[in-house]
Amino acid sequence: MLGLNTQTSWRGLVALLLVLPMLAQAADELPSWNDGPSRQAIVEFVQAVTSEGSKDYVPVAERIAVFDNDGTLWSEQPMYFQLLFALSEVKRLAPQHPEWKTEQPFKAVLENDQKTLAASGMEGLMKIVGATHTGISTATFKENAERWLASAKHPKSTKPFTEMVFQPMLELLDYLRANGFKTYIVSGGEVEFMRVFAEEVYGIPPEQVIGTTFVTKFQDQDGKYSILREPKLALNDDGPGKPVSIQSVIGRRPIFAFGNSDGDLQMLQWTTAGEGKRFAGIVHHTDAKREWAYDRDSKIGRLDKALDAAKAQDWTVVDMAGEWKNIHPFELNQP
Amino acid sequence: MLGLNTQTSWRGLVALLLVLPMLAQAADELPSWNDGPSRQAIVEFVQAVTSEGSKDYVPVAERIAVFDNDGTLWSEQPMYFQLLFALSEVKRLAPQHPEWKTEQPFKAVLENDQKTLAASGMEGLMKIVGATHTGISTATFKENAERWLASAKHPKSTKPFTEMVFQPMLELLDYLRANGFKTYIVSGGEVEFMRVFAEEVYGIPPEQVIGTTFVTKFQDQDGKYSILREPKLALNDDGPGKPVSIQSVIGRRPIFAFGNSDGDLQMLQWTTAGEGKRFAGIVHHTDAKREWAYDRDSKIGRLDKALDAAKAQDWTVVDMAGEWKNIHPFELNQP
Repeated sequence: MLGLNTQTSWRGLVALLLVLPMLAQAADELPSWNDGPSRQAIVEFVQAVTSEGSKDYVPVAERIAVFDNDGTLWSEQPMYFQLLFALSEVKRLAPQHPEWKTEQPFKAVLENDQKTLAASGMEGLMKIVGATHTGISTATFKENAERWLASAKHPKSTKPFTEMVFQPMLELLDYLRANGFKTYIVSGGEVEFMRVFAEEVYGIPPEQVIGTTFVTKFQDQDGKYSILREPKLALNDDGPGKPVSIQSVIGRRPIFAFGNSDGDLQMLQWTTAGEGKRFAGIVHHTDAKREWAYDRDSKIGRLDKALDAAKAQDWTVVDMAGEWKNIHPFELNQP
Repeated sequence: MLGLNTQTSWRGLVALLLVLPMLAQAADELPSWNDGPSRQAIVEFVQAVTSEGSKDYVPVAERIAVFDNDGTLWSEQPMYFQLLFALSEVKRLAPQHPEWKTEQPFKAVLENDQKTLAASGMEGLMKIVGATHTGISTATFKENAERWLASAKHPKSTKPFTEMVFQPMLELLDYLRANGFKTYIVSGGEVEFMRVFAEEVYGIPPEQVIGTTFVTKFQDQDGKYSILREPKLALNDDGPGKPVSIQSVIGRRPIFAFGNSDGDLQMLQWTTAGEGKRFAGIVHHTDAKREWAYDRDSKIGRLDKALDAAKAQDWTVVDMAGEWKNIHPFELNQP
C-alpha cells in the first residue's frame, strides 16, 4: 500500500512538474495582470480548451475570440474617440461649408458650444457623422482617419489616441493568439475607422475587424473605380447587432468574448449560450485615478444590465483598479 | 571576353537549376491543368508575387484571393444548385402549407410545371427563396441545407452536388494556399448555404465565405437565443455587390480573382485596378461533352461583357475543353 501511494504521489509530482512550465509561461504572457480572479479565470479557460485530451478541448479552427473596442481595448472617455474625430473633421471641413456657420449642429461644433451640441441629441450626432464619414470613397475616408490619428492628442493624457489602449488587453490578445485563437474586434465603432489602426496597434488584420457599417456603392467613373460611402447605416453593430454581425461575417459562434458595457450584453449571451466551455469577460472601469470610474449611470459605456447578467451567470468582471498593474502602455515608462 | 561569357552562361544555368524545382513543384500541384496559357499565367503570377526580392513581391497578409462559386468552383447547370435546393424544400414543406396547392408559384413547383414556374420570373423566385430560406433561424436553415446536400443528386450526373466541383479549381485553391494566399468565396449564392459545405469541399472556412445575405435579427426567447433570417435581402452579392462585400468583410483589395460570368465583372475590375501585379481569371464553359458549353446567350452564368473585358485587358480565360484534363473529381476514377 505504501509502495502504491508513493508511486501515485510520484505520478502527481511528475504531472505537476509538467504543468508548472505552462503556468509559468502564462504568467509571463500576462505580466500586467495581478494574480487575481480574472487572470486565473482566463488562464484556466485557455488551458482547458487548448489541452489535447481535455474534455473541454476545442480545435484551433473554432477558437474564435471577440472583443468590443471602445472601453474594452482602449479608453472611451471623455467621449468615444471616433466622435472626437468627427468633431475635428467638422472643423477641418468648415471652409468648404460656409452654411455650417448658421446651421446646427455644425454651428455648435464650430463654436465649441457643448450645451447646444448635447441638446441636438442622436439626430444632431447622425448629421455630424454623416457629414464627416459619408459622401466620400472608402479610400478618402481612410486618408482622413489616418491624418487625424497621426496628429490628434487625447484631451486628458495628451497622448496619441492609439496609445490610449489597455496594456493588459494587448497582452491578452497576444496570449490568445499564441494559443491558436483568432482574435476579432466586434464594435459599435465604424469598421473602416478601426481598420486604420487595428493591425498596427492590436495585431488584428482588417478582415478580423467587424463594426458598424454604412451602405456602400461600387462606382465606375470612366474606368476609375471606387467605393462610395452613403449616408445610411447598413448595420448598427451594437447590442443585438453584435451577434448578427458575428454570424454574418464569421459564421461561427465565438467561444470567448470580452466587452465592457450593456452594448456587449447580447454578444456575451450569444457566446456563452453555445455548447461546451465558454468565456465571457467584462472590463469594469473602477479606476478614477489611472483611468476613469463609471458604470450604471454613465452616458458613455453604461454598464448596468450586463453587470447584473455577469453576477447572475458568473462571468468574469475585471476590477481595473485592483487587477491591472498597468493601464496604458505609456504608464509602463513612468518612474 | 570568352571567359566572361562562359561565366555568365554558368550563372544562367545555375539560376535555371534553382528555378527548375519550383516549376516542377507547381506542375505537381496543378496536375489537372494542361500546360496551356492559363496554367502558365497562374504559375507565373504566383511565382512573381511570392519570390522575395521580386519587384512584384506581395507580403503574405496581402495575398487575398477571391473566387466566385457557381460556375467557377462548381457547375451551375441545368440551374443554380441552390435553386434546386429551394424547389426541393418547397416539396418537403408542402404538407405544412396546404395553401400552396392553389398558390403560385408554389403550385407550379409541386406540379413540376416548368413553364408556369419560369413565367413567374424574379417575383416568383423571390417567393420561393423567401419561403424556403427565411422565417427560420440560422441553425434550422443549416440543418435543412445539410439534409439536402447529404441526399440530393445532380439530375444529369446523378452524383451528389458536392462532387460537381471542379478538380482543377480545387488544385488551384490548394496551390494558392500553399503559397501563402488566403482564399475567399465571393458569390451570389446565399452565405449560410455555402458555409455548409465550403470548409469540407473547398477547404474554405465559414469566415472566408462571403455571399448574398438576408437581414437577420437576434432573438431572446426567455433566455433561449437564436438568429432569425428575415425575408429581406441585406446584400445581393452579385455584380457591383461583389466589390462592396469584399471591402465590407475583408477590408483589403484582393490581388487575385476568378469568376465565370458577367456577375463577376466588377469583382475582376476592382481586383485588377489595384496597384502592383494582379491576376484576373475567367472559367469559360466550352466543354459540352464533359460539362456544358455556354457564354454570351446563356440565362445562367451569362458571360458576355466580362468576356469582352477579358480580351481588352488580357485577363486569363480558361478554355475548359482545351485546358482542363479533368473536370469533376469523380471523372478521375473513370477508366
